[in-house]
Amino acid sequence: MGPLITLTTDFGEGTYVAQVRGVILSLLPEARVEDLCHAIAPGDVREAAYVLETVVPAYPEGSVHLCVVDPGVGGTRRAIAAAFAGRMLVGPDNGVFTAFLDRADEVREVTNTALFLPEVSATFHGRDVFAPVAAQLAGGLPLPVVGPLLSASPVLLSDLRAAGDDGVVLHVDRFGNLVTSFPARALEDRPAAALSGPGGSVAARARTFCEAEGDRPFLYAGSGGRIEVAVNGGSAAAVLSWGRGTALAFREVVS
Amino acid sequence: MGPLITLTTDFGEGTYVAQVRGVILSLLPEARVEDLCHAIAPGDVREAAYVLETVVPAYPEGSVHLCVVDPGVGGTRRAIAAAFAGRMLVGPDNGVFTAFLDRADEVREVTNTALFLPEVSATFHGRDVFAPVAAQLAGGLPLPVVGPLLSASPVLLSDLRAAGDDGVVLHVDRFGNLVTSFPARALEDRPAAALSGPGGSVAARARTFCEAEGDRPFLYAGSGGRIEVAVNGGSAAAVLSWGRGTALAFREVVS
Amino acid sequence: MGPLITLTTDFGEGTYVAQVRGVILSLLPEARVEDLCHAIAPGDVREAAYVLETVVPAYPEGSVHLCVVDPGVGGTRRAIAAAFAGRMLVGPDNGVFTAFLDRADEVREVTNTALFLPEVSATFHGRDVFAPVAAQLAGGLPLPVVGPLLSASPVLLSDLRAAGDDGVVLHVDRFGNLVTSFPARALEDRPAAALSGPGGSVAARARTFCEAEGDRPFLYAGSGGRIEVAVNGGSAAAVLSWGRGTALAFREVVS
Repeated sequence: MGPLITLTTDFGEGTYVAQVRGVILSLLPEARVEDLCHAIAPGDVREAAYVLETVVPAYPEGSVHLCVVDPGVGGTRRAIAAAFAGRMLVGPDNGVFTAFLDRADEVREVTNTALFLPEVSATFHGRDVFAPVAAQLAGGLPLPVVGPLLSASPVLLSDLRAAGDDGVVLHVDRFGNLVTSFPARALEDRPAAALSGPGGSVAARARTFCEAEGDRPFLYAGSGGRIEVAVNGGSAAAVLSWGRGTALAFREVVS
Repeated sequence: MGPLITLTTDFGEGTYVAQVRGVILSLLPEARVEDLCHAIAPGDVREAAYVLETVVPAYPEGSVHLCVVDPGVGGTRRAIAAAFAGRMLVGPDNGVFTAFLDRADEVREVTNTALFLPEVSATFHGRDVFAPVAAQLAGGLPLPVVGPLLSASPVLLSDLRAAGDDGVVLHVDRFGNLVTSFPARALEDRPAAALSGPGGSVAARARTFCEAEGDRPFLYAGSGGRIEVAVNGGSAAAVLSWGRGTALAFREVVS
Repeated sequence: MGPLITLTTDFGEGTYVAQVRGVILSLLPEARVEDLCHAIAPGDVREAAYVLETVVPAYPEGSVHLCVVDPGVGGTRRAIAAAFAGRMLVGPDNGVFTAFLDRADEVREVTNTALFLPEVSATFHGRDVFAPVAAQLAGGLPLPVVGPLLSASPVLLSDLRAAGDDGVVLHVDRFGNLVTSFPARALEDRPAAALSGPGGSVAARARTFCEAEGDRPFLYAGSGGRIEVAVNGGSAAAVLSWGRGTALAFREVVS
């Protein structure tokens, strides 16, 4: 079995994903390339970080995870490659790997242009820089070859790390379920807290959808480890008019 | 070549499909995981049944077909695994496998929790229950290990099995073609019948799109074995204002 | 490693792509099937030609590229298979392979019905004709077996080949960037030219998004070799109200 390389991008449909896949398969024909998610909102580094946090742990050791949500392409943001729990991460240093980098074994800046495609375009580093670096790492290239140890701390997103009262909607799934930035364990730790946002709040809780009462929104421990909001048989996003990026608070209700 | 495992879900884009793929590849690295369709309307068991009916036969013997269109997750619906014509089916017992189960060699209830992920979430059995069971079956686990023979008949959807006068739109494709629940052979058997639905009826027939006259809807034997309705160079769904779930009748026209 | 077969279609989501994949994997289990793009606008041969032009070169020698954007299915258009730079192309003779056919080593008409599925539907040649031919070619079938040399010149799209003053929007990506039919080198060759279309023109140029000024549209050499129009952090398509198919001119500005 060839090595697994996963792709997380904001490319949507179109030609960019296949160009990245083609470059990887040209350099490492035995690679198995997995599409993690290409539906990240354009440039939404936080949503990408959530997706990676949720999906990377489902993949086995030895896998390489490439993320190209890169609104700063062509600017001064650094490119990084990191080793983490037997896996590798490759992408821009903009916070997309927040869930993993403080436990990383090694974080390096990608500077070795000999690893890139012969011609690097100004706008498509996913294809010209990140894809060939990921393919070569997956093929056995030692991590230090990509460049020096990162000289500063990598960028980490505070939204995903805080466990306080204030948070945000990280992601809305296809069913209209809202994934918040609050850790699921807060439901156990704070049995009297409710979630409030623009125009309303949600105090009801349930363990499964079938348990939930009628068509009212409820909180539950999401399968990705965050507090989520759902409506059984409906869309919490529509009922509450909340969406990706909506600011939220999780606080004890005072009567 | 590793075994083929196909996925049919209503997950759309997002993180769920990749989590299922990651679990399968972690347990069975040599698996080849195929995305059959993830665009099933949320919870539409009937559309899922149509998709499986159409696509499963295109895959070779030995393939394992996992379906997670599961509005009853966390409730009392049973999980099943079945052997059918050299293939395996894994999913909820809610009708998604209607096309195959009355010809199945063996249908079992999935009850052996030793096969599941160590932690089973309340809301994501696709990842925690179905994916590991499918991976282990594809890897050679004998079917009886999953659990006892199903004690009652499996759920079958009458909409897909009836060949009478009343039917429904099962699926609308990207071109606006309407796939109905009527079997294609009814076109030959009933040369004078027309299809009627809200606000109109369609009597014209053609064999190919190029044969069809102007921009009027026509009936044809769809490539999936059902009667379909199309408009050459246009959208039958738009012209007729019919959609998924629209009730239809196929009856001889009386003048 | 099995041979790579790529798919480019206008099928969108749904069941058609998986049916094609299933047929290929049934005939050639070791094939690695890549989805290049299934979001081509329905029947838009020109957009398909652009996608293939851009993505095929990213795939290695030995790959087979199947395109099913085929508004003439069931009519008189020919089916072709061609050898080009160590790769194979299979699809309708309607211009989708414009970028490659004038450099092809051999172009043949696909007429050998023994290669097709036993039953060929009237409407789904992608599954019944093109998929089995592509799988067999990828598996080593000599090209001449598919049929005779094409008796006339293959169809080529003038829009993609002209490098004059008049052009068109070929494709809009997810970010709202507009890909035009003008070759990127025209930016260097004609430093004083501007791009004009309905309601406005764009003269500003930049090398990267970060270089671009404010929220005004600018021209740049796209990563696919065409002139593109973008707005940094915004959508050029929305700002200019231009879309796929919009007619454009690229001309020196006279003051």
